[in-house]
Amino acid sequence: MYTVPLMNRLACLACGKAYPLDIHDPFCPVHGWPLLVRPSSRRRRIKDSADSIYERYADFLPWRRFDPALSLGEGGTPLLALRRLAVELGLPGLLAKNEMVNPTGSFKDRGTVVAVQKAVELGVHCVGTISTGNMAGSTAAYAAKAGLKSLIFVKEDTSREKIASAAVYGASVIKVRGDYAALFRRSFEIGRERRIYFMNSVDPFRIEGYKTGGYEIFEALGPDAFDGRQRVRIFVPVSAGGHLIGLMRAFLDLKENGVLRSLPRFVGVQAAGCAPVARAFARGAASVKRFPRPRTTAHAISNPFPPGGDLTLRLLRECGGLMTSVSERAILRAQSLLAVREGLFCDPASAVALAAAQVLGPGSGTDVLILTGSGLKTVEDIDPRALNIRECGLEEI
Amino acid sequence: MYTVPLMNRLACLACGKAYPLDIHDPFCPVHGWPLLVRPSSRRRRIKDSADSIYERYADFLPWRRFDPALSLGEGGTPLLALRRLAVELGLPGLLAKNEMVNPTGSFKDRGTVVAVQKAVELGVHCVGTISTGNMAGSTAAYAAKAGLKSLIFVKEDTSREKIASAAVYGASVIKVRGDYAALFRRSFEIGRERRIYFMNSVDPFRIEGYKTGGYEIFEALGPDAFDGRQRVRIFVPVSAGGHLIGLMRAFLDLKENGVLRSLPRFVGVQAAGCAPVARAFARGAASVKRFPRPRTTAHAISNPFPPGGDLTLRLLRECGGLMTSVSERAILRAQSLLAVREGLFCDPASAVALAAAQVLGPGSGTDVLILTGSGLKTVEDIDPRALNIRECGLEEI
Repeated sequence: MYTVPLMNRLACLACGKAYPLDIHDPFCPVHGWPLLVRPSSRRRRIKDSADSIYERYADFLPWRRFDPALSLGEGGTPLLALRRLAVELGLPGLLAKNEMVNPTGSFKDRGTVVAVQKAVELGVHCVGTISTGNMAGSTAAYAAKAGLKSLIFVKEDTSREKIASAAVYGASVIKVRGDYAALFRRSFEIGRERRIYFMNSVDPFRIEGYKTGGYEIFEALGPDAFDGRQRVRIFVPVSAGGHLIGLMRAFLDLKENGVLRSLPRFVGVQAAGCAPVARAFARGAASVKRFPRPRTTAHAISNPFPPGGDLTLRLLRECGGLMTSVSERAILRAQSLLAVREGLFCDPASAVALAAAQVLGPGSGTDVLILTGSGLKTVEDIDPRALNIRECGLEEI
Repeated sequence: MYTVPLMNRLACLACGKAYPLDIHDPFCPVHGWPLLVRPSSRRRRIKDSADSIYERYADFLPWRRFDPALSLGEGGTPLLALRRLAVELGLPGLLAKNEMVNPTGSFKDRGTVVAVQKAVELGVHCVGTISTGNMAGSTAAYAAKAGLKSLIFVKEDTSREKIASAAVYGASVIKVRGDYAALFRRSFEIGRERRIYFMNSVDPFRIEGYKTGGYEIFEALGPDAFDGRQRVRIFVPVSAGGHLIGLMRAFLDLKENGVLRSLPRFVGVQAAGCAPVARAFARGAASVKRFPRPRTTAHAISNPFPPGGDLTLRLLRECGGLMTSVSERAILRAQSLLAVREGLFCDPASAVALAAAQVLGPGSGTDVLILTGSGLKTVEDIDPRALNIRECGLEEI
């Protein structure tokens, strides 16, 4: 486990410097990059025969003591073989990591539970976030479980359903008119003024939590899948970058500790209608520019100027991964294919993973699509013309 | 495992007679009760160190071979301690079995996967069901995974969101005007005419699948919880009765095989606005009468004349259990409490379990609430006055 000072010790990957934890400004003062928890330098390993993922992966997680009372049972999600799509699309070894079955319906829960543990440890009484949907519900739910208040800022055009599915946990929800990036910065100021821990998209503890999904994939596929003879590909929808950063860090951890030989190939995916990181990657640039006029139905990954963009680019290149983007048409088609052929109803943001695999074509080994969030929160976006619904009287059937 | 003939051998608990399987009429020709799969007479046990629940509980399940390709990763749901509500409501040992994290958001998936396995074994190409929501999505999803067509009948007043969340899997959905009980009977006729396996609420294979939730609860609590010194209570929302029947059968199986000493106390719960089984139980009657003018927001358990009602009553009395009902006000209050205090957003039908525990007061041991379905499918039913939502400009925050 991490020792006490390490837990609060963050580092910037741009300058390599360490910084003390400040939950109201978890960014490098020089480079502006999100700070990450500094890993322990001693040898770490996955533990055997433990009851929970937190015991199995304790060596890699940033706490002295995990309080199971703050958990809603997140993680341990299924890795499913997509046999029918594999044949139909010519993508042998196609798998889906179904993050939709987390307690609030998205991968965010893996990160929220860690950040909330930190909030409780710090004695903070209110947590907050900015969200287009999934993070709102996740933060509000875990705050409720921990007995904390929560304050959620959402964009003014967020649907009533998404707002209600966060407010139902007792959160105070504020629809804010104005620029989203400015709101992101303002939230940390408000946090400092009011002593609210804003656990936003690239919070260092959130990112630590996202690592657990990576360890689970490694364990499900086994070390032989990472022996260098084949290459596992992992397709990850990218918004602010936190999720992909966490997954890459998980595998880097394992490699550094001699647990695996060869890294998987990470494929970060954005919607073509809002693809700032993919554009920077294609240009070979080291930094992300604001994406003009974003427009996509993949709302959960519609972030025109992601705060973790540069860090994502750096890590992706270090890992030998890549970024790509997919069209709206391909996204909606992929969403429908996952439902109709495999019984998996995800949101459009998740479907970008399959769309990207279709564009790239077959690899040399297993392909894992990360399905990040449930389609139940975006039902209103489904085109009714794609559905087969009729009406009749009992006698006419 | 069951031998081949046994798998297709059903029995009526009213007359004790065996009947051959007819998927288009799985009811006793004499008593009209739903037929159940006849358990094997040889000694059965829970297996150690198996990867899936189907391997662990294979002795108790009705197949020769489970095909994991037809699974979406259902089951293995968390049993969570509700520490804050336990203190607040004076209900020590309060737990929730979170069935909302099944692949389509409800416990139905446990049953659907077994019925679909049977459909594939029988060479049926189309499956169907009648549903107010959860069963529609579940049946459509597993049919998609198996490459089967699906036909879903829904009541004409079913919300657009619920219909879309089933139709998205490629199902043909028909909104039917007319009497629901008549539609139930008519569906089996249509099934026979068109060779469609209507896997409705009390399908014998569905009920077999629901048993897995019972085995999981037993394993999570351990045999000491059932040693007779304390008494575990299990609160189960009741609609057609299939779920409660499955859970009771699971524990009866374990008792018959010497795995546990003392049965839990089952508490079946209905909404007072549609409580046919609870009324019959209170009257001491052996059979259920049609409930006049049903009216409740707990749509998922609003079944005025449940086909498994009499069988539920019989088994409940054999097990020393009881039926109760709770008011609309108590249901909505319990739904809110679960979200605000414990971070669990369930539908009103699930919330009846907590409402009943509040009415009954503390027992002598652990209390398990079965949270049957996700609140995300009933967001439109939330009273907006209960939510804290404001709007402002960025500069006004």
